[in-house]
Amino acid sequence: MITTLTFQKLKPSMKKFIFNFKSNKIKKIKLPKNILGGKGANLSEMGRMGLPVPSGFTISTEVCDLFYKNKKKLNKKILNEINKELKVIEKDSGKKFGDIKNPLLVSVRSGARVSMPGMMDTILNLGLNDNTVIALAKKTSNLRFANDSYRRFIQMYSNVVLGIEGYHFEDIIENYKLTKGVLLDTELDENDWEALIKDFKNIVKEKTKKNFPQNVNEQLIGAISAVFLSWESHRAKVYRKLNQIPSNWGTAVNVQSMVFGNMGNDCATGVVFTRNPSDGSKDIYGEYLINAQGEDVVAGTRTPQHITKKARVESKETLKSMEEAMPKTYKQLKNILIKLEKYYKDMQDVEFTVENKKLWMLQTRSGKRTAKSAVKIAVDMVKEKLITKKDAILRIEPSSLDTLLHPTLDEKVNLDVIGTGLPASPGAASGKVVFTSEEAERLNSMMQSTILVRIETSPEDIHGMHAAKGILTSRGGMTSHAAVVARGMGRPCVSGSSEIEIDYKNKLFKTNNRVIKEGEIITIDGSTGRIIIGEVKTVKPEISGDFSKIMSWSDDFRKLKIRTNSETPLDSKTAREFGAEGIGLCRTEHMFFEEERILSVREMILSKTIEDRSNALKKLLPHQKKDFIEIFKIMKGLPVTVRLLDPPLHEFLPKSNNEINDVAVSLNIPVKELEVRISELHEQNPMLGHRGCRLAISFPEIYEMQCTAIFEALVECKKHKIQSTMPEIMIPLVSTEAEIKIMKDLVIRIAKKVQDENKIKIDFLVGTMIELPRAAIKAKDIAKHAEFFSFGTNDLTQTTFGISRDDSGKFLNDYIENKIFDIDPFVSIDEGVGDLIKIATDKGRKQNKKIKLGICGEHGGDPKSIEFCAKTGLDYVSCSPYRVPVARLAAAQAQLKKN
Amino acid sequence: MITTLTFQKLKPSMKKFIFNFKSNKIKKIKLPKNILGGKGANLSEMGRMGLPVPSGFTISTEVCDLFYKNKKKLNKKILNEINKELKVIEKDSGKKFGDIKNPLLVSVRSGARVSMPGMMDTILNLGLNDNTVIALAKKTSNLRFANDSYRRFIQMYSNVVLGIEGYHFEDIIENYKLTKGVLLDTELDENDWEALIKDFKNIVKEKTKKNFPQNVNEQLIGAISAVFLSWESHRAKVYRKLNQIPSNWGTAVNVQSMVFGNMGNDCATGVVFTRNPSDGSKDIYGEYLINAQGEDVVAGTRTPQHITKKARVESKETLKSMEEAMPKTYKQLKNILIKLEKYYKDMQDVEFTVENKKLWMLQTRSGKRTAKSAVKIAVDMVKEKLITKKDAILRIEPSSLDTLLHPTLDEKVNLDVIGTGLPASPGAASGKVVFTSEEAERLNSMMQSTILVRIETSPEDIHGMHAAKGILTSRGGMTSHAAVVARGMGRPCVSGSSEIEIDYKNKLFKTNNRVIKEGEIITIDGSTGRIIIGEVKTVKPEISGDFSKIMSWSDDFRKLKIRTNSETPLDSKTAREFGAEGIGLCRTEHMFFEEERILSVREMILSKTIEDRSNALKKLLPHQKKDFIEIFKIMKGLPVTVRLLDPPLHEFLPKSNNEINDVAVSLNIPVKELEVRISELHEQNPMLGHRGCRLAISFPEIYEMQCTAIFEALVECKKHKIQSTMPEIMIPLVSTEAEIKIMKDLVIRIAKKVQDENKIKIDFLVGTMIELPRAAIKAKDIAKHAEFFSFGTNDLTQTTFGISRDDSGKFLNDYIENKIFDIDPFVSIDEGVGDLIKIATDKGRKQNKKIKLGICGEHGGDPKSIEFCAKTGLDYVSCSPYRVPVARLAAAQAQLKKN
Repeated sequence: MITTLTFQKLKPSMKKFIFNFKSNKIKKIKLPKNILGGKGANLSEMGRMGLPVPSGFTISTEVCDLFYKNKKKLNKKILNEINKELKVIEKDSGKKFGDIKNPLLVSVRSGARVSMPGMMDTILNLGLNDNTVIALAKKTSNLRFANDSYRRFIQMYSNVVLGIEGYHFEDIIENYKLTKGVLLDTELDENDWEALIKDFKNIVKEKTKKNFPQNVNEQLIGAISAVFLSWESHRAKVYRKLNQIPSNWGTAVNVQSMVFGNMGNDCATGVVFTRNPSDGSKDIYGEYLINAQGEDVVAGTRTPQHITKKARVESKETLKSMEEAMPKTYKQLKNILIKLEKYYKDMQDVEFTVENKKLWMLQTRSGKRTAKSAVKIAVDMVKEKLITKKDAILRIEPSSLDTLLHPTLDEKVNLDVIGTGLPASPGAASGKVVFTSEEAERLNSMMQSTILVRIETSPEDIHGMHAAKGILTSRGGMTSHAAVVARGMGRPCVSGSSEIEIDYKNKLFKTNNRVIKEGEIITIDGSTGRIIIGEVKTVKPEISGDFSKIMSWSDDFRKLKIRTNSETPLDSKTAREFGAEGIGLCRTEHMFFEEERILSVREMILSKTIEDRSNALKKLLPHQKKDFIEIFKIMKGLPVTVRLLDPPLHEFLPKSNNEINDVAVSLNIPVKELEVRISELHEQNPMLGHRGCRLAISFPEIYEMQCTAIFEALVECKKHKIQSTMPEIMIPLVSTEAEIKIMKDLVIRIAKKVQDENKIKIDFLVGTMIELPRAAIKAKDIAKHAEFFSFGTNDLTQTTFGISRDDSGKFLNDYIENKIFDIDPFVSIDEGVGDLIKIATDKGRKQNKKIKLGICGEHGGDPKSIEFCAKTGLDYVSCSPYRVPVARLAAAQAQLKKN
Repeated sequence: MITTLTFQKLKPSMKKFIFNFKSNKIKKIKLPKNILGGKGANLSEMGRMGLPVPSGFTISTEVCDLFYKNKKKLNKKILNEINKELKVIEKDSGKKFGDIKNPLLVSVRSGARVSMPGMMDTILNLGLNDNTVIALAKKTSNLRFANDSYRRFIQMYSNVVLGIEGYHFEDIIENYKLTKGVLLDTELDENDWEALIKDFKNIVKEKTKKNFPQNVNEQLIGAISAVFLSWESHRAKVYRKLNQIPSNWGTAVNVQSMVFGNMGNDCATGVVFTRNPSDGSKDIYGEYLINAQGEDVVAGTRTPQHITKKARVESKETLKSMEEAMPKTYKQLKNILIKLEKYYKDMQDVEFTVENKKLWMLQTRSGKRTAKSAVKIAVDMVKEKLITKKDAILRIEPSSLDTLLHPTLDEKVNLDVIGTGLPASPGAASGKVVFTSEEAERLNSMMQSTILVRIETSPEDIHGMHAAKGILTSRGGMTSHAAVVARGMGRPCVSGSSEIEIDYKNKLFKTNNRVIKEGEIITIDGSTGRIIIGEVKTVKPEISGDFSKIMSWSDDFRKLKIRTNSETPLDSKTAREFGAEGIGLCRTEHMFFEEERILSVREMILSKTIEDRSNALKKLLPHQKKDFIEIFKIMKGLPVTVRLLDPPLHEFLPKSNNEINDVAVSLNIPVKELEVRISELHEQNPMLGHRGCRLAISFPEIYEMQCTAIFEALVECKKHKIQSTMPEIMIPLVSTEAEIKIMKDLVIRIAKKVQDENKIKIDFLVGTMIELPRAAIKAKDIAKHAEFFSFGTNDLTQTTFGISRDDSGKFLNDYIENKIFDIDPFVSIDEGVGDLIKIATDKGRKQNKKIKLGICGEHGGDPKSIEFCAKTGLDYVSCSPYRVPVARLAAAQAQLKKN
């Protein structure tokens, strides 16, 4: 909206660090948010628009950096600039800072590029001291208000700037009230507050060994410094981590002349949205209070009143709306709101104060909104010709769409939250607690809903995860097996909840004071990570017409194709409905875990001769063939990338003693022998083990069976004149030219065989995953034999960093806290990994101009990574079915940002 | 010696594929071995030198490739060339191929670039059939010889070309002899052989459904094709794999007119070396037989006689030496030998035949020799001014020096070999079989020698491996833990012997039919992989004056510095004696395993608070300090690279129940708690887990302790005026700029602290391992904070390929058999890994011109990798102490090849 500016490219000595909201000098220049912060930029904008903004200035975000570099102190140059700008406020307001007759009071507010809870927000009434408080009392003819303001200021300042914990002050107030025999603060009068102010000052003296600062300049510098310090507070860091906000952005500070909404009944204060932030409807939406200060609106001590009559009537309130109580000022406000929305071309969240009938605009910013509202507002604004389709697309946060695609909890109900974990896969689900996949399946077959609760999940749990309505684990991060698979399936999942302790033996789990047994009903909210006792009603997703409009506009703009990762008919159907343009990753091993097949799989693994292995594979062939026929039918006309068997064979073997016994009986081999074979197949580092194409180098029969299944499925479709697909056969874990060559020869040989047997021509591509650094480095050689590359960014990230996703939980937090990773590299493609992708892209295309390039893996659904893919010039991304709409939007945004 | 030639860069149509030994046309051109093969090149050389070589020609190695590309057939062009060259032989010899009066007989021999057992070697007397055999009988006046030659030819041809197994023919001969009542072949006369020839031909008819080829041209084409086919025989492939010979070299074929050493007593045949191949002394050394064919010399049916009188006298033989029996021919031979050695400037291995007093030279090649002999010959030849010092250095295979540095088995003794494994660490050792490190230590303290026998070893076994004289494992490859550590320690090791089955419970191991119990004495030969019952005498290494001369010449030429990987005083001393110029890798974790420390290490790991951890670390500090003081003293004046703690903490925790109980008691914590903590620390992929600098990001106290130990050790030395070292502190497993920055700050902070406390200036460098692909890719950023890079090629290879060394045993063989890896990438630096090293070198130097670059890890002792490092411009390589002389030589060779 506001473009970045060359202004700040001046020499440091010429550089300005502080900007008056209405400074004539910069009137023609829009300063960007990254300099002024969101709040500062908007105040400055409002100033330039001629709106009634109390005089003030912004200390730029760059000062935050300088502050930290200068041992957490403001340097002289900046102190001088602050003094200069303070004079401007004094001139504008006709008041003087620290004056005992007409004192200037100011607010000091933080303002980062994006609104950021966790940082110091606001100190009001700064400039009050033992002298100026009297002046304020005189001016407002309200000693109680003046004393109350002063004590609030001392309280807030002491807490935020001097670091004295708030309860000290609260305790004094409580004791005072007890002594006086009253219950509410409002029952305290001016004298009470005066007495309390003394007590407060004593506390400050006791805790800091200094008097509460009476010097207003000292107050100001203290408050400004506190804002900068709050940028690195624990809460702020946590928020940044959760919201992927770089720590080098820094915050700006806004210093502004106070206006008072509490100087009588011709005063008021309020917050208002230009449209409804919840559903997006085009109604002014907000609250105000007569004779109040801003914090009263949010504090809940008085019930705020509606802004519009319509809203008051609808909610059956009796207290007058602003429209009714202050019609003239309301009209002025309404006009300003229209002006603001037209100017910013976006829904605004505005704070205002009426001081003796005069309307003051304190803040405007783009209003936070639900995804639903975001979509509606964007589409409406296009209709209103306020913004273009491009703007509409760029306006919506792609990942927010997630919430539109999954059922959500009905927040109106009272929730008994017993713990939280990571919001690993969005959506809500309720069901009986089960601790094994078998139990989940058993109950599922009886039409009962379950939540599968496991310490962590493994590929063996896939069927249980499918059977359950939701998954809860006590270990593993956002990219643990449970999380990844659940997202892929669209199952809600709460992962890594360290608050719960699972006791498999006694079939229960414990939280702080609660014990939940198998069979009890819980609800998990994968969008927030909450674990709730009992069944909670959910609200079904409404994919409105606006949503599909945004999607179709996105499709018009984007160049990147969006495919899906899917290996089941259900997922494939879902993905097609969500607009997937093919399957980018069909993991054939998931097909191996189904009950009727796993025994043959195990037989194959445990076979001692090629004959035995081939026999076991023969039993699997018809199953795989059937799978492919189903998926090919669903994806008709669209490409399907089938990845041949990837995981190490030991993943398919039984783990518990019971299972081992069962399998030994089924396969008619001694338990001892089975145990020996399992221990032989054990690997120190399975991630780097005998898997991917390495399996097929050792046992070509496996891939031969899989290719036969694929090609016979195609033939079957052709024979029955069913439109199917052109499969892209993908070889996993290639690191050398020889591997892909040998594998390609194998695929072609089998294709020829099936073709000759059936006299039906088969079309297909052969390509490879690029998921090892060596494959990226040697992409030119590999491209000689590959018709496509699919970047397996999960494994590529693991090997490039030498970090196992499964084990990273132990130190990833330390890494983010130490700012080593700005962003989890398993969520967004890392720069180093990106370099390897670029190298492989360049080398691959140099060797083979026509080579198809895409990514599969978790990053395929991450908007930042999608932007990277678009920039790098890949042909497609592939993501889980439920991320397809997100990816469509993100791809359009990427294209628009690229142009 | 023979430079490669532009000759073969002609257009294909102009290209010659067949070369006559004496062809006038190419007289001026030296054809290289890669075209003619070793044998062919030498025959052609001898032809050009005017030596008496039977007429013949070489089919070039390029035809081998064409043969395979042409469906294993010779194409027409080549067949025509063969015919043309055959005519030349006919003209030279005055004989005609297939002629019934004066038939030309030829030998057909394979000849690759290097001598290669496992391939078809020689077919003699080709051209014999039912008719020509009569002519041969007439010409030699020896029907028995002619028939015997024919039957041998049929036997050999049938076996090698027609694929009929040899025992069929042997059986017939045996039965025939039984019937006739004789024991020896020599008791059969011409008629017996004639009868047997009939039987042989029947066998051929029965097995191939065809008559034995009477057409001599068919015989010739068959034999030539068989040579090419033998290039891909199983045995040849195995040999290439073991000797790292690329399979695309192919073999040449030599066709040569036969000469006969068995046409009477003025005939003879023999093999001779120009110097003694065993000890290098300057004496003609060889054997001959009068009236015999070449194969009689090697077959052992007759005892060969000495060539020189001196040798005969020394060995107290009575049969006349050639010098005595054929003085004139001997003199002629001797002159030729001198001429050959002068020409080739190397010791020659020569085959000759005397046919009716005429000396024919059949072959000359560089003679194989022991390392000892190689060193002596090279030094002698420099003295003789035959070769330069450079030649001498280039002449010695660096890895062969290994055999000079370890005790070897006395091969004169009869060995009871009960199995074999991989020759993982050279040298021989005998001792009592023990199955635990504890037992090895116990017996060691009683001055008893042991061989530690384990399925595989772990870092916990380090003390046991130190205590044992040798290590034998049933699992793991050449780069398994056991192999790597044993090589580092200089302990003989046989690893991955799948022939032995270890039963820890019953304290025994089984081989095919033998059971070896704990306490029985075995001998292992780490140079050959043999496992032998009982104690075998060993021969101690003799590092002669010649050896040190070669070393000092090498030092004059090489630019690459050679450091060692060492963390014990013993190893450091050994390495210095072997010429190490510093320590390139001092692994501090090995210091943690010693008995008196491991408890504190475990206490540290299991501590719940920073205080507890710091307390445990305080106990370790004096130990580490002492270690460093010792090593710094030994390495005085030389750099020491200390790597801070690298392995994941769980490696230090106890594994067996007994150990867990012991540790729980020692640390006074419940067993249950210890078990929980161990399971918490368990990792799926420890290789990619919480290790390296990741540990120090989580627990900075650990590195702080280690740095304190290093710096206090330095201070201690300075205080006592002991010359020590400038340590290079190395941070492991860095992948991002932030990690190295944080770690460098930590090191500097500790250095400042120790410096301030002691008022003594401390000098040191801080650098990092480059062992992750991301570190290589982002080397420019990392070099901002690193004063040196040490390429950790072991881990870099693992992550670049995504292959765990520990698990690669399961498929590495399949990979080598499928020609996917020409060479094990854990032995020699792979091309892709090399690309990453080059990228990091370029980027690192671009950022920081002065950055020191080296490699540590197994590749540092591998000559091929050393050549790569020299080419890439690294500053040093670091290898295990016992590889230092190998590396010095290899580095000199690399430099000479580079110039």
